Amino acid sequence: MISDTPALEPWQWPEERWRALVGQVRAGRPLRPASWKDGARCAVALSFDSDHETNELRDGGRSIGRMAWGEYGARRGVPKILEILAKHEIRATFFVPGVSALLHPDEQRRVVDEGHEVAIHGWIHELNSELPYEAERDLMLRSSDTLEKLTGVRPVGLRTPSWDFSPHTLRIQKEMGLLYDSSLMADVDCYELLLEGEPTGIVELPVEWIRDDAVYFGMHRFQALRPHMPPSAVFDVFRRELEGAWHEGGIFQLTMHPHYSGYRSRLWILEELIDLAKGMGDVWFATHAEVAAWAKEHAA
Amino acid sequence: MISDTPALEPWQWPEERWRALVGQVRAGRPLRPASWKDGARCAVALSFDSDHETNELRDGGRSIGRMAWGEYGARRGVPKILEILAKHEIRATFFVPGVSALLHPDEQRRVVDEGHEVAIHGWIHELNSELPYEAERDLMLRSSDTLEKLTGVRPVGLRTPSWDFSPHTLRIQKEMGLLYDSSLMADVDCYELLLEGEPTGIVELPVEWIRDDAVYFGMHRFQALRPHMPPSAVFDVFRRELEGAWHEGGIFQLTMHPHYSGYRSRLWILEELIDLAKGMGDVWFATHAEVAAWAKEHAA
Amino acid sequence: MISDTPALEPWQWPEERWRALVGQVRAGRPLRPASWKDGARCAVALSFDSDHETNELRDGGRSIGRMAWGEYGARRGVPKILEILAKHEIRATFFVPGVSALLHPDEQRRVVDEGHEVAIHGWIHELNSELPYEAERDLMLRSSDTLEKLTGVRPVGLRTPSWDFSPHTLRIQKEMGLLYDSSLMADVDCYELLLEGEPTGIVELPVEWIRDDAVYFGMHRFQALRPHMPPSAVFDVFRRELEGAWHEGGIFQLTMHPHYSGYRSRLWILEELIDLAKGMGDVWFATHAEVAAWAKEHAA
Amino acid sequence: MISDTPALEPWQWPEERWRALVGQVRAGRPLRPASWKDGARCAVALSFDSDHETNELRDGGRSIGRMAWGEYGARRGVPKILEILAKHEIRATFFVPGVSALLHPDEQRRVVDEGHEVAIHGWIHELNSELPYEAERDLMLRSSDTLEKLTGVRPVGLRTPSWDFSPHTLRIQKEMGLLYDSSLMADVDCYELLLEGEPTGIVELPVEWIRDDAVYFGMHRFQALRPHMPPSAVFDVFRRELEGAWHEGGIFQLTMHPHYSGYRSRLWILEELIDLAKGMGDVWFATHAEVAAWAKEHAA
Repeated sequence: MISDTPALEPWQWPEERWRALVGQVRAGRPLRPASWKDGARCAVALSFDSDHETNELRDGGRSIGRMAWGEYGARRGVPKILEILAKHEIRATFFVPGVSALLHPDEQRRVVDEGHEVAIHGWIHELNSELPYEAERDLMLRSSDTLEKLTGVRPVGLRTPSWDFSPHTLRIQKEMGLLYDSSLMADVDCYELLLEGEPTGIVELPVEWIRDDAVYFGMHRFQALRPHMPPSAVFDVFRRELEGAWHEGGIFQLTMHPHYSGYRSRLWILEELIDLAKGMGDVWFATHAEVAAWAKEHAA
Repeated sequence: MISDTPALEPWQWPEERWRALVGQVRAGRPLRPASWKDGARCAVALSFDSDHETNELRDGGRSIGRMAWGEYGARRGVPKILEILAKHEIRATFFVPGVSALLHPDEQRRVVDEGHEVAIHGWIHELNSELPYEAERDLMLRSSDTLEKLTGVRPVGLRTPSWDFSPHTLRIQKEMGLLYDSSLMADVDCYELLLEGEPTGIVELPVEWIRDDAVYFGMHRFQALRPHMPPSAVFDVFRRELEGAWHEGGIFQLTMHPHYSGYRSRLWILEELIDLAKGMGDVWFATHAEVAAWAKEHAA
Repeated sequence: MISDTPALEPWQWPEERWRALVGQVRAGRPLRPASWKDGARCAVALSFDSDHETNELRDGGRSIGRMAWGEYGARRGVPKILEILAKHEIRATFFVPGVSALLHPDEQRRVVDEGHEVAIHGWIHELNSELPYEAERDLMLRSSDTLEKLTGVRPVGLRTPSWDFSPHTLRIQKEMGLLYDSSLMADVDCYELLLEGEPTGIVELPVEWIRDDAVYFGMHRFQALRPHMPPSAVFDVFRRELEGAWHEGGIFQLTMHPHYSGYRSRLWILEELIDLAKGMGDVWFATHAEVAAWAKEHAA
Repeated sequence: MISDTPALEPWQWPEERWRALVGQVRAGRPLRPASWKDGARCAVALSFDSDHETNELRDGGRSIGRMAWGEYGARRGVPKILEILAKHEIRATFFVPGVSALLHPDEQRRVVDEGHEVAIHGWIHELNSELPYEAERDLMLRSSDTLEKLTGVRPVGLRTPSWDFSPHTLRIQKEMGLLYDSSLMADVDCYELLLEGEPTGIVELPVEWIRDDAVYFGMHRFQALRPHMPPSAVFDVFRRELEGAWHEGGIFQLTMHPHYSGYRSRLWILEELIDLAKGMGDVWFATHAEVAAWAKEHAA
């Protein structure tokens, strides 16, 4: 860990300090396979963060309105998403906070029964960077145990809540022997994560704000956050990302939230993207775990 | 009520605390009828929140500019909306704060005379979650009395101002014997509200930020809030929600504000939605009270 | 003036308090003529707020970057706007803070020489609601004297900077014998302003955020304010407002700023609106003073 | 330097104070050549600010997620941009903070090897207006030395980080004998910078928020900043600016960032602009240094 030097402003820092900050967690070896499973040209890795009520609980849990919004994610959002995935015979990954899983245990069982992956997404959607090492480690292990107990499957991947990756996160992931993380964004292809310059063996399956529905559909009554991007424009952004991935033979990774995309005016985006990808041909729809494992094994 | 445990962060909470917070108000039995009145396939429940000057009064009432904006809602917005509803022979619901009703009593009488519903929307657009129980109860009753005295009709429904539902709101609604609330968003269909796990008999007719003009047209000079969504894109979102509701045989519930939608560049949205719904056929335009009552009586 | 009652929250206020706050400045008699000059169906009142460097000075004047932005308004924005107005032989109104006029005296002379109106827009773009009565009155008079001295014409109208109308503004406008104000928004037509319920004889020519380029093109590096509305969508909003005004036989009033609209990607909006209005026929392009005077004299 | 007068509000300032604030740095003689190199009608000056990890370091460097975002700029953004420039045989300017150059020395060498200009962009993306004169001067010189040492070329131009131009910046630029600055926006054409009314010989090649990808694609998880402008609309804005520049025979200056525009859904904007400009004909693609030098030498 890097100690604080409160007396200095960043422009006064000695070189070792900014090098140390930059060097904590870094993109290492690119993990780009020559082709994907069954010779597919492009991998499509869809993910859904089933935060539900934990977004509001994390902030103190005082708003009954926002709690109802979270409940929508479980009551209506996830079922509609599962219907679409089933109809198209596609498997995907659901990142689920421990508390959310305990509030909705049947949902997790159904998700796994229908062939999808359930992966770690913190305990109560806490911000890792605000936690001491012991707390972060404890919550991460407890989350993993909770998901395993409910679904019978031990998770192999983790997405930090709010993509808030602490200086301890990677160390804990290594201790836990995880296959992959999906919270960072230093590339479009998978890469091996470096911890203070050392290879960890852990695969990063990169996310991007550009490919996150929360960016466009976020809303907070008492802040200036509004869903100002029309759904058709959101689709257009995702479409361009997908087409670029197909063109380059890479990964189209997407992050959606049941309480953002699970609405009548937005669910079509998911369905149309699936149709579009299928129409392109040579596409492998896979869970994050499958994509990360393939990239790790078949990196050029 | 749930007591504060200030010493603990949410990630430290014991399970009973987060379960208690989540369990305060919850979606219970779905209230989805097999069909709507006269066999209609889709119910269209239009609502208008006649906040007028109370938005500014609630914040301290110092801005004469924002007060004039509120006055616009009464002087120009409501009359234009009533014209459109009359032309199309459609009835709708107006949620009116008590103070707004007292400032514009003729408006409320006209609204009721033209066949629309007037329902409760707080006293001065206060935030319920900031009030003690006694104050919230007193303001809610006073608001109901005010509307009844002005229009001759006792309101049967309530929408909390800013959809800010306090831990006391549902209890007070039960005491008042209300038919429905329209402030929460745990589903697209009506549902019965649960108070700490117990059915209340009160119907929730769910709202959504997606179907609220204030989300797209909000503006605050001294904040970053701006109406960045073009009217045509707002129409497109509402259209998709309407088409989805028709397709599923559900409810298209919409929230508009006279001081947001009552402008030359935006009123067409309302009119075009009505035309669109009529063109779809098998649509029942009804007040919130009628939709809630029908859902309660005919739930499958 | 209404005294403060700091001990009470708005929801606790006695009726006389909220009635007094609402009643300070109010829309009175509508001033809607049967037709406009020469029988025109629609009046088009274009206005340009030549704030230039005063936006930054008002905030403390520390940012050289924002000062250069203001300079753009004078160096490039106003000349391009004047070219367009001259090409189309149209007259308009320029609201100019006193300090801006002193920094750019030739600009004001040219504006008046080319037949346009120069009107009051505060001293240094100050916020009136933060000023004591004496200061507001002094700055308003000084601004008027400054404009008269520079251009030879005594202004007859005023737009408060940031449309921030104080409890003293209307009283001072009355003392100054102004014909009109253009800062409030209680209607789409002109109306007579009431001061604590009494007619003042002063015409309000209403503005609206919807018809203000700053709303869509505002930008502040260290806040979340960004110009997120594409120029084509801004044009579309203004077009709808214009068409509505023409259809109803009313006024299309528009507010632009040289440092917002005076750019290659935005100037076309002004020009295309003028073309559109001319193509509609029966349109009277006039200064704010002319529109206000006509409305006052010919109100039905 | 202008001393503080903390006891006075801007509306109370004496004339000499606001004149002094305005007069610190000012646009002087326009530097608009009759035509560009080889008789070209329009100059296209593309620039890329290679901030990479320094955006996060400047703010304290605590977010590993934002650091990964910066790493993306270097790992993926710059290579993709260089590919596009090479394919179209176009040269451009890269503004690089000293720390960013030290973190990515090979990148700077490649940029220069491929014929592009590397110019100064502060040390660690610090805000100049928060620095004492000595610190700003020291960081600027150190940045210049760093770039020269790495690339073998002494920079001749500077863009202040965040376009935050301090009261000392121009004085230091003069001491350093720079050819040009590119941080201010008082015109669309080049102009000579005035320091307290005196010509400096330094050329301003003006930027604009309108022509900066960061404005539309900015994103901050814990603020309300979101990339709400669809890429097609961003292209449309840039296209209009380009067409206006061509029409007037001026400069199309553009600012992009590898970590904003270097994505599959956005890189096409750069490529399509280049195609469009080439299709117009008579266009000179040049570095900022070349455009500034030409403007200075051939001003009418």
